[in-house]
Order: sequence, then structure tokens, then C-alpha cells
Amino acid sequence: MYRVLSFLTMFSFAFGNEPILPIPQSIDYNIDKALLGKKLFNDTIISKDNTISCTTCHILSEGGDNGIKFSFGIKGQQGDINAPTVYNGFYNFRQTWNGRNRDLASQAFGVIENPVEMGDDINFIISKLKKNRYYKKRFNTIYKNGITAENLTDSIGEFEKALITPNAPFDKFLRGDKNAISLKAKKGYELFKLKGCILCHHGINIGGNLYNKFGIYTDSNSSRLGRYEVTKKDEDKFVFRVPSLRNIALTSPYMHDGRAKTLKEAVEIMSEYQLGRYMEDGDIDNIVEFLKTLTGEIPEIAK
Amino acid sequence: MYRVLSFLTMFSFAFGNEPILPIPQSIDYNIDKALLGKKLFNDTIISKDNTISCTTCHILSEGGDNGIKFSFGIKGQQGDINAPTVYNGFYNFRQTWNGRNRDLASQAFGVIENPVEMGDDINFIISKLKKNRYYKKRFNTIYKNGITAENLTDSIGEFEKALITPNAPFDKFLRGDKNAISLKAKKGYELFKLKGCILCHHGINIGGNLYNKFGIYTDSNSSRLGRYEVTKKDEDKFVFRVPSLRNIALTSPYMHDGRAKTLKEAVEIMSEYQLGRYMEDGDIDNIVEFLKTLTGEIPEIAK
Repeated sequence: MYRVLSFLTMFSFAFGNEPILPIPQSIDYNIDKALLGKKLFNDTIISKDNTISCTTCHILSEGGDNGIKFSFGIKGQQGDINAPTVYNGFYNFRQTWNGRNRDLASQAFGVIENPVEMGDDINFIISKLKKNRYYKKRFNTIYKNGITAENLTDSIGEFEKALITPNAPFDKFLRGDKNAISLKAKKGYELFKLKGCILCHHGINIGGNLYNKFGIYTDSNSSRLGRYEVTKKDEDKFVFRVPSLRNIALTSPYMHDGRAKTLKEAVEIMSEYQLGRYMEDGDIDNIVEFLKTLTGEIPEIAK
Repeated sequence: MYRVLSFLTMFSFAFGNEPILPIPQSIDYNIDKALLGKKLFNDTIISKDNTISCTTCHILSEGGDNGIKFSFGIKGQQGDINAPTVYNGFYNFRQTWNGRNRDLASQAFGVIENPVEMGDDINFIISKLKKNRYYKKRFNTIYKNGITAENLTDSIGEFEKALITPNAPFDKFLRGDKNAISLKAKKGYELFKLKGCILCHHGINIGGNLYNKFGIYTDSNSSRLGRYEVTKKDEDKFVFRVPSLRNIALTSPYMHDGRAKTLKEAVEIMSEYQLGRYMEDGDIDNIVEFLKTLTGEIPEIAK
């Protein structure tokens, strides 16, 4: 097996390009909007009863999600889908598991308008913001038309745009530092490509750029219908946005319903459901080592 | 290698479900609309200068495409994208290479309204149809509001819905006839799954149900930008609707730009561009044998 592996590896490198791209060192954004967005992101004022903020689900010091299966919105209401990380969201082709939001601002709008999340009343949030002297001043300085629903979500989206995590060990490896990751992780990356994981998890976010069916080989036993919830087309049942694997070691539990607690379980599930194959423990361990190299640096603005 | 292969094969079958589904034996459609659609499909009246019909690009006795790289529209104008087969189009989640059409009727409308194809003047086509006694009578019988652009494309779409090709040897194999395909084809199917082809080519149409980037490992040197042409978003550059592999042995040349003449070349290109791996000739031959088992039966209505 390993002879075959190294033979294929040779050719894979011979083709030159790698199917995963490093995250750029920096990204352009409007610092005034982003800092206003940061303040809003951390402020419970944007929930109807002042109990939760964006950070309730997206803890920036802990991978950009909250480590629980389903998050709690206002009044202790629990959602029914796992909160994805907010990091590197700008590089996803769509936001949320079913891809209903095209950009970060519209995702923020969706959360504020969700009765189970922030309370379904953006106009009330706007009225609260208008009574706040700090926000009134900042919005009026930055936006011609001051505090509006559009400007509110625009500033949060601008902050989230800034939340990129460059310089993961694997990105350093891609840039030429062959010692940036362990031999096990290198083997894991080759297996990741050989076994087919790469077909969905590629590009700058190692995912986040296509939809595919959850459960290609087996029924995924999912209570959520994925993209079908948006399109109402039969063929979109159980089709989800492929999640990014960036910072995946920090964002347990995994899958849209948080069914996997560890990376090992997640790889096992993917292997069975998507690749239709049993994977040996040694191979899974190597792939997990590779996945651990995808943890990047938290940007200054997130601290 | 073959020991590993049969080991994995065992598990793949142990999981039960296969990631490819057979085409149903029949499909419900409105026979009156479909027969009107068939007449229109074969009639040059639906092109501006009465020179081409749908069959110009979609020859139903030859795989549902026309065997040339780029098709010719009215006035000898040549297009710049390969005409996909019309067979089993109903099972695609979107139509055309960049997915701009959601259903068969809107695809037909797109062709009629394309200056390089049928001449960009559906109203003129409608006026021609209104002067035709046969069409006038049939449309008035079938549709309350007679000849309209919507009814024209609806009837063509209904005919195309009927164009399914059941009972391919591989479908018989899936239904339990283990002798329906050769040993080489069986090995090819296992390789198709093992190497990762299945990740994009699965479901009832063995493709046609997701978008992915053409050139995951290497620049695809494509003059067409794919889904970007619809969305104008950078991340959609070179992203195409994954084509169905149904009846693939009949629809050379391959790829959106017809760059591959043989199935062998097509597999080589996919292997290099999408899977980033060199594939041995023996493996390619087996996969090609598998692909040849995907040719189904032409339905009566297409004859």
C-alpha cells in the first residue's frame, strides 16, 4: 500500500499545483466599519431582550464557534443546527449550512431576524441603537444615513470579513516550509487527497465553496433537510454546503447536527457516508494530524 | 493493490447502499404536451430563419448530442460550448454547463432567445407558429391560452422530460443482475469509487446534481468561466455543473469545450485535473469499461 501511496504522491507533486491555497496574510477592509462591527458583535444590544450577542455562538478565542451541539438564543430557546465558525467566513461561497445567505451581512441579518436566535425584530434593535449616544455618533460618522438595518449588518459583516486566520502550519507548508508539519500530517494530507476528501474540501477554505449531499453512500439520518429548506426541490434534500476545515481542531462538535465529538469520529463518519469505505485507524490518525495543522493565527482585531 | 482493492470493496458493499441509483423504468408526463413538444423539437420553425431545430444539436438516435465540439446555430454561427445530451436532463439539478437554467423549459427558452443559436426572437417564432394551422389547433386544444412563449417551451420541456434512458447494463447490475456487466466493468466501478470520481458523479444521473471547480489541481486552461458567467463572483470562476455520465459512450467529444475525443482521454483529464493523480492504463481501461455500461435504452417517444 505505501509503495502505491508514495508512487501516487510523486505524481501528485509532479502536477505542481496543490488543491488547497493558503490564506493571505492580510485582507483589505474598512477599519472604521469593522471596529464598529466588532463593538456590535460583542454587544447584547442586538438581541431583543439584551441577553445574547454574536459572541454567544461565535467565541473568537475558541475557534469562532461555541463548542456546543446546538446554540441557545433568547429566552433559553435552543436551535437545531450547529453554529459554524465565523472565522474565514468571507472565503465561503455562501453562508450557513443550507447556503441561504450569500454574504456575511445577510447572515447577520438572518440571525437578528430569527425568533429562536436574536428575536425577530430588527426594527426594535434599530430603535435601541438610536437611543445609544455612542452608536448614534459612530454610525453618523461612518454612514451617511446613520443607523439603519443595512448599515448595522454591513458593519458586522465588515468586522467578520477581517476575521481571517493566516499562517496555519499547513499554510506555511504550502508556502515551502517543509518542516512546518509533521511526517504524520504529511501522510495524512496525501491520504486526504488519495481517499477523495479533497474533491469537496479544496480551495482557500478547504471547503465552503460547493454543495454536496450528506450521505452519498448511506442515509445520513438527518433531521435537517439542508438546501431543500431553501429550494424545496427534492434533489436538494440532505444537500449541505460543504463546511470549511479551517481551524477544525477548535470547532468540535462536528457535522450540521453536531453528531461527532472528535475529529476521529468526524473522519469515520465522512469515510462511511461520503466515501463508502472503511478506513483503518492508522490512516484516520494521520488524517486527523493533518486536520490539526489547519489551525491559523487569530487576527489582532479579534482579540 | 488488488488485495487492498477487494478488501475495500467488501466494505463498500457491506455498507449496503450504492451511491448511484438506477433510472426508473418510466416517468409520468403529459403525453399530449410531450407529443406537441416532440413535433416542435424536430421542427426548424422554431429558429428565426427556419434552418435549425433542437435536433440539430440533440440527435436522439446518437446519444442526444451531436458529436461535434461546438454546435452551429443559424447563419452558420458556431457556439463556444459543447452541447450536452438532452437525455435524462430532467434528473439534473440545473441545466447547461453553468447552471443558468433551472428547468428544461427555461433551457429551451434560452436556446430560442440566443442570437448564436436560434436567433433571439421568440416573439417572431410565436408569430410563425400562429400562422400554422396544425400548431394553432394543437396548442388551442392543449393550452387554454393557446400559442404563447410559455406554452411553447413548456411543451418542449415536457417532451424532454420523457427522454429518460432506463435499463443500462449498469442499472441492471444495480438491480441485482450481477452478470449484466463484465468483470472489467465491475473493477472499473470499484476504481471509480476508490479514486474519488464518485464524489462528484453520484446519484441518479451520475453527476448533474452539483457544481464543482474544473481544475482542482491544475489550471484548466478554460476559455469559458463557468458559473462565474452567471454570478460574476470570483469564487465561481471555472466552476461548472458536474455533467451526467449517463450514455457517456455516445456523447464524445467530452468536457464543456470538447477537448477530449475519447473516454480514455476524458478519464485521463479528470484524473489529472480533479484528482491530481496519474492513473495507470489498466485502471483507466477498467473505468472506461464501466462508463460503457451506462448506455441506456432509448424510449419509444424518442424514436
